[in-house]
Amino acid sequence: MGELVLAADLGGTNLRMAAVGPSGEIAERVRRSTPHSDDPMVIVDAIGEMATEIQAAVGAKRLTLAIGVAAPVIMDARNGSVYKAPNLPAINGFNFAGELSKKLGLRVILENDATAAAIGEHWLGAARNVENAICVTLGTGVGGGIILSGQPLRGPDGTAGEIGHICVEPNGHPCGCGSWGCLEQYSSAMAVVRIARELTEEKDRSWPGGMTAEKLYEAAKAGDDIAIEAFRRLGYYLGIVLASLINVVDPDMIVLAGGLSGGWDVFIDETCGQIAKRAFRLPALRAKLVRAELGDDAGILGVARLALETPDQGLLES
Amino acid sequence: MGELVLAADLGGTNLRMAAVGPSGEIAERVRRSTPHSDDPMVIVDAIGEMATEIQAAVGAKRLTLAIGVAAPVIMDARNGSVYKAPNLPAINGFNFAGELSKKLGLRVILENDATAAAIGEHWLGAARNVENAICVTLGTGVGGGIILSGQPLRGPDGTAGEIGHICVEPNGHPCGCGSWGCLEQYSSAMAVVRIARELTEEKDRSWPGGMTAEKLYEAAKAGDDIAIEAFRRLGYYLGIVLASLINVVDPDMIVLAGGLSGGWDVFIDETCGQIAKRAFRLPALRAKLVRAELGDDAGILGVARLALETPDQGLLES
Repeated sequence: MGELVLAADLGGTNLRMAAVGPSGEIAERVRRSTPHSDDPMVIVDAIGEMATEIQAAVGAKRLTLAIGVAAPVIMDARNGSVYKAPNLPAINGFNFAGELSKKLGLRVILENDATAAAIGEHWLGAARNVENAICVTLGTGVGGGIILSGQPLRGPDGTAGEIGHICVEPNGHPCGCGSWGCLEQYSSAMAVVRIARELTEEKDRSWPGGMTAEKLYEAAKAGDDIAIEAFRRLGYYLGIVLASLINVVDPDMIVLAGGLSGGWDVFIDETCGQIAKRAFRLPALRAKLVRAELGDDAGILGVARLALETPDQGLLES
Repeated sequence: MGELVLAADLGGTNLRMAAVGPSGEIAERVRRSTPHSDDPMVIVDAIGEMATEIQAAVGAKRLTLAIGVAAPVIMDARNGSVYKAPNLPAINGFNFAGELSKKLGLRVILENDATAAAIGEHWLGAARNVENAICVTLGTGVGGGIILSGQPLRGPDGTAGEIGHICVEPNGHPCGCGSWGCLEQYSSAMAVVRIARELTEEKDRSWPGGMTAEKLYEAAKAGDDIAIEAFRRLGYYLGIVLASLINVVDPDMIVLAGGLSGGWDVFIDETCGQIAKRAFRLPALRAKLVRAELGDDAGILGVARLALETPDQGLLES
């Protein structure tokens, strides 16, 4: 029986795969750019090639018959297909798990990437030994994963945990999801750049081309008033949503993950201030606000954990 | 061994108690006005007298050694005391369960009233046979109870489920909880009267004294434009929060309870409209929006259920 599972993280930009052991040790990794094509089978084929590479490197006999795949999708848990994939439109409505399983001859465990990251952080990262944790991924968008009594909250459709689509401004900025004023429109990398541009235009200053959240972070650190205000607003809305979640969920811990969490020094005071002003005191005192520990590996480790939990039925045929 | 449990609903206005059988049948009821005093023991004594009345009516031998109490409080589950009781300030910080247990010689199961109502509706009401339900109580304030995989969500402090304190307007009306713009300030009986008064003042019309949510409901039904708009706003904000909760929790059902739910015809279209516009389609299609079925008995039946689940250790001493 194999002791390693395959685990993949299918992002909008990169496609990464690893062979992962029972304690989360990564035996082998491969990475390539995510292929963008109208044909969803191009992604399936790419994952197949990467699986073959890893199999060649570690030896087929060491692998179990399961692969976990983290992807930025809302899945329809009832039939294993992708319900919504804003950054990977090719797989919208596609029976991704089913087709991948056919291609690889493996059981495929597909999981929303933010939920996978929460599972990873709960297994081996910031939230290990924590019963109730909320993981908020601050990246291009805002993702969410919720662990209750040690188990991920998925809901009957598998769509639960979409913290980025909690409304914070009823008449706010239109969101890609079809609503208005979602957290994602205020506390994501995309949002902080838009807010900085709006503030620049309000002040009749010129807006430099090629602005990114990273450059804005550097500007905020260097004392730029617009960059500082844009990140304060990011922290403000994040704090409002976390206060609401503290009142509704009463978590032991809130883990901030994703690229933006690395620069939390420019917004976390505002976030903590809003929580302190708005949430009920008892659960607010409990909820420890921390940064994720696993970085880019959180999702891969999360789906590795799920794949390790599925019963193995034999060896991967080579 | 007794087959009936005592169950009490301690409201801001009325204190009700019943003896409840294993299928939820109510064998005996008593009711009195909730005593208001600075001394929390006055409430404990009143509950003691009512327990004695019920005991006399049904016979001590038929009662188990447990009493469930639903109360409009946030409890500190770590020590059984009342953490916050906005409508019953006398018991703020009081070890209610402990003192009541000493007085009655019974095990006391104290539960937040909205969570108790959710448990009741899940046991015998609108949400029976439903795995994942959100119960929103629209009364003087807005309460919430969440059932996940058949179990109430309480959180480690016992404070979870406070749906009324999700923020819907970041700079909105100040809330009794210390925050601003909570749902309770837009979608409660208290709120709809305030909003109607604000609208009346904006239009320079005169505001009649003694206005209540019931009178406003009648006015809305009779075509009064201000009453109609006040209820539309109630429904609007409720819809925004329910859409957020659908995205985060993916419930099978949303149950609207409390006095205002009886008049949902004047706001439910707006609520459903906001959900349809804002929530992810897949979980929104799943989440059935219904009215509660147990009326005032939901809380009593909820805590009766909890008391019935606690192991009995003998007969009530008479």
